[in-house]
Amino acid sequence: MSRESAFIDHLRGLATSPAARALMDDAAVLERPGGALVLTHDMLVEGVHFLSHDPAGDVAWKLLAVNFSDLAAKGAAPLGVLIGYGMSGEAEWDAGFARGLGQALRHFGNVPLLGGDTVSMPPGGPRTLGLTAIGAAPACGAPDRRGARAGDVLFVTGTLGDAGLGLALLQRREQAAEGARQMLVNAYRRPEPPIVLGPDLAPLMSASADISDGLLIDAGRIARASTLTLHIDLGRVPLSAAYRETRGEDTESRLSAATSGDDYQLLFTAPPERELEARAIAARHGIMLTEIGRCEAGEGEVRLEHEGVPLPLPVRLGYEHDG
Amino acid sequence: MSRESAFIDHLRGLATSPAARALMDDAAVLERPGGALVLTHDMLVEGVHFLSHDPAGDVAWKLLAVNFSDLAAKGAAPLGVLIGYGMSGEAEWDAGFARGLGQALRHFGNVPLLGGDTVSMPPGGPRTLGLTAIGAAPACGAPDRRGARAGDVLFVTGTLGDAGLGLALLQRREQAAEGARQMLVNAYRRPEPPIVLGPDLAPLMSASADISDGLLIDAGRIARASTLTLHIDLGRVPLSAAYRETRGEDTESRLSAATSGDDYQLLFTAPPERELEARAIAARHGIMLTEIGRCEAGEGEVRLEHEGVPLPLPVRLGYEHDG
Repeated sequence: MSRESAFIDHLRGLATSPAARALMDDAAVLERPGGALVLTHDMLVEGVHFLSHDPAGDVAWKLLAVNFSDLAAKGAAPLGVLIGYGMSGEAEWDAGFARGLGQALRHFGNVPLLGGDTVSMPPGGPRTLGLTAIGAAPACGAPDRRGARAGDVLFVTGTLGDAGLGLALLQRREQAAEGARQMLVNAYRRPEPPIVLGPDLAPLMSASADISDGLLIDAGRIARASTLTLHIDLGRVPLSAAYRETRGEDTESRLSAATSGDDYQLLFTAPPERELEARAIAARHGIMLTEIGRCEAGEGEVRLEHEGVPLPLPVRLGYEHDG
Repeated sequence: MSRESAFIDHLRGLATSPAARALMDDAAVLERPGGALVLTHDMLVEGVHFLSHDPAGDVAWKLLAVNFSDLAAKGAAPLGVLIGYGMSGEAEWDAGFARGLGQALRHFGNVPLLGGDTVSMPPGGPRTLGLTAIGAAPACGAPDRRGARAGDVLFVTGTLGDAGLGLALLQRREQAAEGARQMLVNAYRRPEPPIVLGPDLAPLMSASADISDGLLIDAGRIARASTLTLHIDLGRVPLSAAYRETRGEDTESRLSAATSGDDYQLLFTAPPERELEARAIAARHGIMLTEIGRCEAGEGEVRLEHEGVPLPLPVRLGYEHDG
């Protein structure tokens, strides 16, 4: 067990309120008289989650996006954010961060900054950023990971693998044509969780999670929480033109897209009779929606196939960090 | 202007919602159909706000207490917390932290842990801790710093200066007898914000803040926000027996208590006709309440007197950090 997992196990004993969802879901869901709240807090640390030379505005965008991705997966509409800002390095970075945060808050629906805390890190300490996002749960209740049923269809929004490939380009592990490179790096630096879709899709979702650690790992969490088998057709995993142009679309390329993480797209199940409705909602918001698999009775596992042939799961399913 | 203040000025442009209270109050107050929420987020960084050898459980307690102090000052009852845990150093520390957090959550009213995030700091990076506390605002509305009126009485809960003296003892800048030392160090390490008082006192409060940076600095904030003069009688500033035994109670000792910070007590104003009621509420909860001054027409300043003689304000009013 990783040290983070061990610590989370310690905390789980304190998280006995149903609102905490046993620390197993993307966010907490706190019942309130006027409607439930969805609450999430994610951190980004320099040298761990971003690099010192990453543009400050992009880091701010990402900090907001990773939290809003959790809200979207619970069908919540953002109400506001609180920031925890551990400052370090040069002062110009702070101004760039504030500008980027402002752009992102406007972009995701003019969400207000409500408050927070600003502290100086000790000399040489890494910039350490936290953000708490508060959202209004949908009236139907916030979907969790446990409700998928045999017969349900598995959907994903947007395209997968772009951010992971963007990171590989930034790290010079791979190369791409200039146009594709821009799109892929942007997918890594300024992810676009489909926050407008969450509240509209929530009534159709039987189970829902965001894809932060990789399709296969996040699908595995739904499969285990719902105690069934998720069959995923690798050939249906949606790939962007920039991704296909750079990596092709053979099995290896598709497996990369399904395990690379940082996608911040929605992964959800819905009964087959709601499929047309789901597609209409996504189309109305101009967001791509793809059926990539189905749920069958099972014990909590993911099974892959490609072109009709079963495919063993890769050893590495995604980023096995916590939270 | 400090770098933190400059950054907060950048953020203020994004905090235009009334819920943010222009980032000038202890916490945000978000109106919701079933009753307003009070939201606050404070951070503690190793090497800045606590020392590497401070007991992990005490650090957890303090992280919770500094946030609950903000809730108390807004009259809010805690609903839950989210934690941001940047881990570093040895794993045993994590277990001690989780135990201390559990103790503190139970102590302050069985408040649930709702969620959060756990990350590993880069090698050698300081432990960096954030906590978001969510509370239910009182039905009368959450008091802010702006409502004090000429004629109102100024109150403080508990005793002041204990935590600051406790820190001085830990840093070997001062000495105390063993019994006093224990109490004073405990006041520094395990502060006791009067969270049970906030909701009951809120209907009487015309303005309220917590004392985190020192009585004189926090009183100055109320004076400026309410545009009046706060007269404080230094002789009435409540001192504990351990404090008096260690430092005496001359002017210098009293000025230290009024400027030392980390008290996490309530500072509030109320109309004089509500004084008896306020005292009855505090007595019911077994919490000391002291009238230390009064509000007069003015321009936003604090005036000190001691034994009937006006006293110039000290150069250093408290800890001039932000948040």
